[in-house]
Amino acid sequence: MMKTARILSQGDEITTGATVDTNSAWLAERLWMHGVRVLGTASAPDDVELLVRLFQDSSRDCELLVSTGGLGPTTDDVTAEAAARAAGVPLVESAAALEQVRARFRVIGRPMTASNAKQALLPRGAELLENPAGTAPGFAFDLGRARIFCFPGVPRELYVMAERHLFPWLAAQGSVPLQRRRFHICGVGESVLQDRLKDMALGDGVRIGYKTWLPYNTIVLYGDPGAADGLAQAAAELRRRLGEDLLGEDETTLPEAVGRLLQARGWTVALAESCTAGGAGALLTEVPGSSAWFRGGVVAYADDVKTALLGVPAGLLAEHGAVSEECARAMAEGVRRAVGTDVSVSITGIAGPDGGTPDKPVGTVCFGLALPAGTLTRRAHFGIRGRDLVRALAAATALEWLRRHLARPEA
Amino acid sequence: MMKTARILSQGDEITTGATVDTNSAWLAERLWMHGVRVLGTASAPDDVELLVRLFQDSSRDCELLVSTGGLGPTTDDVTAEAAARAAGVPLVESAAALEQVRARFRVIGRPMTASNAKQALLPRGAELLENPAGTAPGFAFDLGRARIFCFPGVPRELYVMAERHLFPWLAAQGSVPLQRRRFHICGVGESVLQDRLKDMALGDGVRIGYKTWLPYNTIVLYGDPGAADGLAQAAAELRRRLGEDLLGEDETTLPEAVGRLLQARGWTVALAESCTAGGAGALLTEVPGSSAWFRGGVVAYADDVKTALLGVPAGLLAEHGAVSEECARAMAEGVRRAVGTDVSVSITGIAGPDGGTPDKPVGTVCFGLALPAGTLTRRAHFGIRGRDLVRALAAATALEWLRRHLARPEA
Repeated sequence: MMKTARILSQGDEITTGATVDTNSAWLAERLWMHGVRVLGTASAPDDVELLVRLFQDSSRDCELLVSTGGLGPTTDDVTAEAAARAAGVPLVESAAALEQVRARFRVIGRPMTASNAKQALLPRGAELLENPAGTAPGFAFDLGRARIFCFPGVPRELYVMAERHLFPWLAAQGSVPLQRRRFHICGVGESVLQDRLKDMALGDGVRIGYKTWLPYNTIVLYGDPGAADGLAQAAAELRRRLGEDLLGEDETTLPEAVGRLLQARGWTVALAESCTAGGAGALLTEVPGSSAWFRGGVVAYADDVKTALLGVPAGLLAEHGAVSEECARAMAEGVRRAVGTDVSVSITGIAGPDGGTPDKPVGTVCFGLALPAGTLTRRAHFGIRGRDLVRALAAATALEWLRRHLARPEA
Repeated sequence: MMKTARILSQGDEITTGATVDTNSAWLAERLWMHGVRVLGTASAPDDVELLVRLFQDSSRDCELLVSTGGLGPTTDDVTAEAAARAAGVPLVESAAALEQVRARFRVIGRPMTASNAKQALLPRGAELLENPAGTAPGFAFDLGRARIFCFPGVPRELYVMAERHLFPWLAAQGSVPLQRRRFHICGVGESVLQDRLKDMALGDGVRIGYKTWLPYNTIVLYGDPGAADGLAQAAAELRRRLGEDLLGEDETTLPEAVGRLLQARGWTVALAESCTAGGAGALLTEVPGSSAWFRGGVVAYADDVKTALLGVPAGLLAEHGAVSEECARAMAEGVRRAVGTDVSVSITGIAGPDGGTPDKPVGTVCFGLALPAGTLTRRAHFGIRGRDLVRALAAATALEWLRRHLARPEA
């Protein structure tokens, strides 16, 4: 029998629209993968009366309630109080919770304030749930036939605590998760991917899903428990169809894929950035241990910095402009020389909102890729997508271009 | 009397986590801006029974219900059916709705299918709401004392329809928007702020809220219509208490605040980054027009790049290590010289997960700030917060440190 659940999120930031509730989607997907049917999500502002009613109403028709938010130290964090009232028990100070809060402050090296002590007040009888990533302990309690888990609203803390407390509880209740395989792509439109995959046969118990967050796509294959063979066959077919567009699977990210390919060749890389101003370097070094293959780079925002630190000739800038394939070539070659690496990538473009021309509209970005065998350049147009997105697309496109070249035997 | 509302979203894509519900946040913010108090948001899967209950339960304690999703042509779009059952009326074909669907298909030049005719079935007595951006007409009806608006789930269609149908209705009901003032802080704990402000007197109709997203805090003052004086007084008191911790108000971001201060002095800035690898530069240049005061920088990830491009003496690195205030000083002075700016900031630290020592644990970051009057250094410990967060905290801390110095008359 499939379990049923509801998901609650708490806080004025949700009900005034200050925050988009990504926690509920995260929980919903994971509960669904654990075979739990989510009957709904709901939120309430920081209002004890409304929260009490939400706990009581929501627990009436399901076996599991997962709540996020409202566990902080401030007066508007009222989840524990509402939970206690809903369950008809008093709030009591938990010595174990207080010790967890204290220990957390020792770890982060900051003084614990009086208001943090409030975080150790739990409904009497509640189970304390350790939070290894923050100061707010979580707790679980029973209301009617529902088990209620209260987690913090900080996503990073929620994820760790769900892994530690919620999923093991589900497993103990006999839930068997779906198998999931994820296939990541950068810079290919979703409709292009769907067209390429639409006639793909999926065996019984295997489903496919798409997720897009520009410029990335993730194709997800889900397999029912027992459909392992069908899932493996579908994964093999998907790899064949995606070819070199497939940058990595499951936990692999674009910078990790680049790092692995560099490491396999024993190569190092440098970056020369203009419009991204360091964004590509920050992205590439998200990978722990990236110092094994990333040496550094130059952020050349002003034109004369391109000349002084990268050796881009002033005459080239005067003739072609900073946003040109000529400049991108000189930047890539300059940084490869200055930093002393095997390969380098350069980015120079117009992020906007101003600075565009009819010839080079906002969103125009030029790239250079200096390899031992020579230097390549290309130009891309990211349209009028807003400054932040143009810069994010430029940084990811640069790394994806590097990845494709490193993945080719002849590079 | 302030109106109260609830927001509903419908569809399996919400309750399985395939889609993050941005519609509810969009509606919540706009309802708040129109002076409506949102008592909660809620979602249900494509299930008539659950939707009927959601309509009935949600309409009990508020005057307005706004629902998105479930108006499409497929069998899992069941909003109209659920609305009719909740209201106890039959579904009837609306000639006007059918004509709207037909007209829409003429506009997009596609044949109308039989399943699209289903979109013209509305609860008897419902008001038809024209959809100028898609095929699904919306509708509005009364349930108890609540007015219920049903809009499509496609965000683009929702936005247009809310502008056309919902906000004019609110204005006709006499809704007057709340006033909001936001105060931004970087690098001060939420509980420290709370303690500093807890005895602050707020006049009638003025409330205070906190929002934290590390390392930032936003304190929000909300004023009821008519509480303009009280809001202004509270804002003045808040400014006095926050002093130099206040980095900016309302739309102002940390990089904007830094940019304004630089511009006021006619100064330019450069960055030397190690562990952040460009993240501080990317953050600083989020501001359009930052080229007026940001010239560039050096990402010196490898030690010998610190020596080659920033002139950090090899002997200094051997004696003190790259993560040291001595190295941070040399990096800041080196990049100020190399890029040719008035001021510069350097960042060198251990982001982790590896590389820590008992003396310099993971999370140790050293900063340098080279000003015309001399160079300052400092060391911070961001604890074991994970590589990404240590890097984000380091970048923001560097810019916030720069901001505080630029804001002081003697800098």
